Amino acid sequence: MTEIEIGRGKRAREAFDFDQIALVPSRRTRDPEEVSTNWRIDAFDFAHPVIAAPNDSVVSPETAISLSKLGGLAVLNLEGLWTRHENPEKVLEKISKASPDQVTQVLQEAYAAEIIPQLLVERVKQLRSAGIVTAGALSPRLTAKYFKEVIGAGVDLFIIRGSTVSAEHVATIGEPLNLKKFIYELEVPVIVGGCATYQAALHLMRAGAAGVLVGFGGGSSGTTKSVLGVKVPMATAVADVAAARRDYLDESGGRYTQVISDGGVHSTGDIAKAIACGADAVMVGSMLAKATEAPGRGYHWGVEGGHPTLPRASTIHVDSVGSFSEILQGPAISANGSMNAIGALRRSMATCGYSDIKELQRVEIVVSQ
Amino acid sequence: MTEIEIGRGKRAREAFDFDQIALVPSRRTRDPEEVSTNWRIDAFDFAHPVIAAPNDSVVSPETAISLSKLGGLAVLNLEGLWTRHENPEKVLEKISKASPDQVTQVLQEAYAAEIIPQLLVERVKQLRSAGIVTAGALSPRLTAKYFKEVIGAGVDLFIIRGSTVSAEHVATIGEPLNLKKFIYELEVPVIVGGCATYQAALHLMRAGAAGVLVGFGGGSSGTTKSVLGVKVPMATAVADVAAARRDYLDESGGRYTQVISDGGVHSTGDIAKAIACGADAVMVGSMLAKATEAPGRGYHWGVEGGHPTLPRASTIHVDSVGSFSEILQGPAISANGSMNAIGALRRSMATCGYSDIKELQRVEIVVSQ
Amino acid sequence: MTEIEIGRGKRAREAFDFDQIALVPSRRTRDPEEVSTNWRIDAFDFAHPVIAAPNDSVVSPETAISLSKLGGLAVLNLEGLWTRHENPEKVLEKISKASPDQVTQVLQEAYAAEIIPQLLVERVKQLRSAGIVTAGALSPRLTAKYFKEVIGAGVDLFIIRGSTVSAEHVATIGEPLNLKKFIYELEVPVIVGGCATYQAALHLMRAGAAGVLVGFGGGSSGTTKSVLGVKVPMATAVADVAAARRDYLDESGGRYTQVISDGGVHSTGDIAKAIACGADAVMVGSMLAKATEAPGRGYHWGVEGGHPTLPRASTIHVDSVGSFSEILQGPAISANGSMNAIGALRRSMATCGYSDIKELQRVEIVVSQ
Amino acid sequence: MTEIEIGRGKRAREAFDFDQIALVPSRRTRDPEEVSTNWRIDAFDFAHPVIAAPNDSVVSPETAISLSKLGGLAVLNLEGLWTRHENPEKVLEKISKASPDQVTQVLQEAYAAEIIPQLLVERVKQLRSAGIVTAGALSPRLTAKYFKEVIGAGVDLFIIRGSTVSAEHVATIGEPLNLKKFIYELEVPVIVGGCATYQAALHLMRAGAAGVLVGFGGGSSGTTKSVLGVKVPMATAVADVAAARRDYLDESGGRYTQVISDGGVHSTGDIAKAIACGADAVMVGSMLAKATEAPGRGYHWGVEGGHPTLPRASTIHVDSVGSFSEILQGPAISANGSMNAIGALRRSMATCGYSDIKELQRVEIVVSQ
Repeated sequence: MTEIEIGRGKRAREAFDFDQIALVPSRRTRDPEEVSTNWRIDAFDFAHPVIAAPNDSVVSPETAISLSKLGGLAVLNLEGLWTRHENPEKVLEKISKASPDQVTQVLQEAYAAEIIPQLLVERVKQLRSAGIVTAGALSPRLTAKYFKEVIGAGVDLFIIRGSTVSAEHVATIGEPLNLKKFIYELEVPVIVGGCATYQAALHLMRAGAAGVLVGFGGGSSGTTKSVLGVKVPMATAVADVAAARRDYLDESGGRYTQVISDGGVHSTGDIAKAIACGADAVMVGSMLAKATEAPGRGYHWGVEGGHPTLPRASTIHVDSVGSFSEILQGPAISANGSMNAIGALRRSMATCGYSDIKELQRVEIVVSQ
Repeated sequence: MTEIEIGRGKRAREAFDFDQIALVPSRRTRDPEEVSTNWRIDAFDFAHPVIAAPNDSVVSPETAISLSKLGGLAVLNLEGLWTRHENPEKVLEKISKASPDQVTQVLQEAYAAEIIPQLLVERVKQLRSAGIVTAGALSPRLTAKYFKEVIGAGVDLFIIRGSTVSAEHVATIGEPLNLKKFIYELEVPVIVGGCATYQAALHLMRAGAAGVLVGFGGGSSGTTKSVLGVKVPMATAVADVAAARRDYLDESGGRYTQVISDGGVHSTGDIAKAIACGADAVMVGSMLAKATEAPGRGYHWGVEGGHPTLPRASTIHVDSVGSFSEILQGPAISANGSMNAIGALRRSMATCGYSDIKELQRVEIVVSQ
Repeated sequence: MTEIEIGRGKRAREAFDFDQIALVPSRRTRDPEEVSTNWRIDAFDFAHPVIAAPNDSVVSPETAISLSKLGGLAVLNLEGLWTRHENPEKVLEKISKASPDQVTQVLQEAYAAEIIPQLLVERVKQLRSAGIVTAGALSPRLTAKYFKEVIGAGVDLFIIRGSTVSAEHVATIGEPLNLKKFIYELEVPVIVGGCATYQAALHLMRAGAAGVLVGFGGGSSGTTKSVLGVKVPMATAVADVAAARRDYLDESGGRYTQVISDGGVHSTGDIAKAIACGADAVMVGSMLAKATEAPGRGYHWGVEGGHPTLPRASTIHVDSVGSFSEILQGPAISANGSMNAIGALRRSMATCGYSDIKELQRVEIVVSQ
Repeated sequence: MTEIEIGRGKRAREAFDFDQIALVPSRRTRDPEEVSTNWRIDAFDFAHPVIAAPNDSVVSPETAISLSKLGGLAVLNLEGLWTRHENPEKVLEKISKASPDQVTQVLQEAYAAEIIPQLLVERVKQLRSAGIVTAGALSPRLTAKYFKEVIGAGVDLFIIRGSTVSAEHVATIGEPLNLKKFIYELEVPVIVGGCATYQAALHLMRAGAAGVLVGFGGGSSGTTKSVLGVKVPMATAVADVAAARRDYLDESGGRYTQVISDGGVHSTGDIAKAIACGADAVMVGSMLAKATEAPGRGYHWGVEGGHPTLPRASTIHVDSVGSFSEILQGPAISANGSMNAIGALRRSMATCGYSDIKELQRVEIVVSQ
């Protein structure tokens, strides 16, 4: 551990973001056509490891279905606009029309509406009836309140996602979610996070998570660092959590928890970087918000963007670059890393000489300031 | 101590600013509602540790009262516009109307007016009569001249603030302030600074200070580095002074000096960062100059901005983002770290798993370039 | 090797680009008139070590001849516009007229045309008949298909250039190029690359290469890092490959492989930096695309810029600064490092006190962030 | 020595510029009125250590006299416009009117005129008759040719200044200047440079220099790094040369060579930084080119800016901020570090607790990225 002295008696660790690192080819190369991008969690197989984040700017029931048909997993936010509004399209329209100065207040208003349990059930059923792997996300705070509806409606994967989720939440008022007990009793696999450290991740793994989300749920629109002063750069966070996976695999006698990098993907190359640091899959938001079909209509915001008293995500304008299919599978018609994400991952693996995602986790990396 | 060789025979220490560090959550989380932001100095209790700096753009007698009612401490500059001008509002108006090229000269003129002792007494009495904790600041050079008026008018806390204050000022012309003797004889607790190193802080603590200001009194408008070449990045300075606090606590058999970070707070997250480095409280200027009630009318300047021959602070334009109440207590209507400072601090503590300021000083940090 | 911990269990090496380093003069100086910039590969001598890259924006049959007459080596891309189009000038015109948004698609279309073997032969013969050192480049994928035509037409130097070329390409469909066998059987010296590591370079040297290209073939227009996440900063890559050259020289009992830095040259000073890291010669693209005679007509793009599904090079606008002669031999009429490249190299050597390229490889360097 | 591995077998030293460092106050403070900025070289005393560089944009015979009367040393370029043109004002006018694209060519033309030996003598006599310390600069190449005229006309200090000057210049055509013999025979003290390393400086000291210039003679307009790839960041260069001074003082039994930092001063704080690294005096160009009286008329260029084939300095526009007197002695009417250089130096010393330049060389510094 590279420790730095900030001042007498206060030491810090140097931590790295994806943009500070790069992959180094090995002495071998491969054909892009002959590498595998497959990803599996629990009993579910996917053609690629790129997961659509539960952002209302990316995943609607409709786009979840499209994205699933393109081979990936898409997660619907179960406490977002689709479960608070009968007609979220009107709300999305309003958000996309708001001026930069006003947009946070427009979000605050939109997310102030109460969750309608019946809508929540309907949305999940809509996914289920499309025959896709059905996945929905709740925050830790609302999980206890709504999980029965969610399970009842038939999700395949249950995601508990907050900016920081710990297995040891201390509260004296009300009873906090006992994560271990909760996961144990649930019939479906649970993915839980964000977490950003070895210890926090290990505790989530011990609580029985099928996958852990690494990051703070903010992604490219997040302002957690400026608002809270809290940040763990993604390359370091993913590598630490991958180490927890290895240690938990040993202590549990063989339980392999999926490490899902959640945040910090600005271009297709960042997907390969996340895997190089040890991720099994990568959750992306803004990259998919650039799709012509994206509900955000050229805008993207994190789930904390509408917090009533302390919003922690900006609403950013994103260029619409092509369809979901073009963004994921190409062909790319520009060279800026916004399109053909799976083709790019495939070629990263081929260029570096690796044949699947698990192998790519071993690739050598450099720090390049 | 990480030492770097600049060249043969000249070594330097690497030092860090708040924007190079970030807080790392522990494995525990808490509810924001259940953490305490209380701060105490001597016999005075405050709901939060954010102190309004003695900048004329921030603290007038009137705003000192408002800010105190919001739970914090506000310090009036006793050698600023309010003690030099019967009607400072006219002067403030003129400053806010000056062109960027002219504004330093307008400040020089405004601060060239003589201090009127009677006004100084009146301003302090105005604060006192409002029933708030009354605090006023003088520079070391003028302390000897005016302290009797200040004490006589009834301050609760006496602040001696200069860009660099040492307990060992060498002068052959005139007699410099003997800080130890002065503090000993004064009836009120004294906060003194800026200082930026372990040694300088330790000497101020030994001189009897109730609190030391860490920094150079320049803050976000300061140009000390470009004008004088002098700078100690804040994260390092606070950590060093916190180490002096620990050592002085031991050598004095239990005297705990408050370490007050003074400068470098650009967004709400920096408050948590200052505490993470060891601060007990944080003095802010530009953050509060963004209030609609701020005397600066959308402008902010450091106390050195009006120096007659060597001004060392620019006058910067700041956006008015909301009321003092919104800036300190929220709700925030933007996600850029300019509002709901106390709510943000509360959530930083909760996210990282700590329950009060003293605990938060122990949080792990990373360096993130 | 300076290793950095990215996170638990994932280490990385710190790597450096040319813009992070600089040459340090020794205690001796020389006259620029008295240093030699000569370069030799196999039986071919050149007045200077600056090689024109096989970019269609730089090297046409016509400019290859001009550039050779100015003392250097120019490489024609044998799978570029000149072998796909009877009249490439029309295509180049179209590229130069395309809007930034459209230009990648225009390139994709232009490079989608089939290679015409007869044209390939004609272009090589055109070079040959001019009496210059004739050099042409193919990618690894097309080498097996067209090498007979190329050799038959009479190249002096055969260049195999791809973004990453390894001596150990793994493929199950079709038979990959057996580089060692291929080079052994060819009658002409082969330059091969890009490669970026000690191991990959050593394998290429063992395969019999007369020279290896260091880099990813992308140069200043390349987006390999953002699209694939793959990058090895050039100063580190060149130094590593130079180390492979030394070790191979020993293990082979005296075979000296030319190390050719390919990419990262943004100004004339970068040529000296590449040599300082251990390069024997430097391949440049954008620097020569700035010539008034350049086929790119003020634009430059890498060979991957027209890839049908995953373009990995932008088309960048470059200012036309002067003729090839002025860019290489001066006089310079600006001080920005875009002209008189050989004069600048000469003066770098003189200022630092070295008399030829081999000596300049020993110059001391500093890292300057 | 902090060594970094660039790649296998190529190591580099980390080097620092003034803008990466800052001064740290000691535990003592002083009154600015009670510190001394005096500087002495050979038998000449100056009120301050800021030397006007031999730039035609700064020093004319007339401004040399003004600057000397303000307490400092000013060096006239004896191979610049004043010795090549009867009426340089016309030429300066033309330079100031040239467009950015054309200005290098205008300089090249202006400096292509032959030096008129008679003018050279006249200019020196003009300085001498004003009763100031008369100092003129020649490049190493022209020193042998013109030194007799220069000495005959009566300079007090002879400056030999080139981008890199070594005591061991290797040349086979013509006989290079034998610096040691030359300095020994001359009747006046010689200042020589630029140099940037311990070894090169030590050799210049052994050759008998009264002072050495540290840097490459380029200053803020210099493009040596981009054109030649050559650079030694100033903080490191000054510290190294100061170490040579200490060692030479010992080996010579007491000869103290003045170390003069030449380049890298962008604001008044950089003067204190140069001294903190070990400089005895600081040569400045662009800072004084900002004077209303400066011959450059709002423009500044290095002496290499007019090189006929390889110009290595841009012509930069500088704001006119005030008179020479205001720039050196204040009062400053802005806080950006462009005015009251001596007052700022005085206050740096006072703030840090030192009483003269020699003491300030001991000040603690930090690296602040």
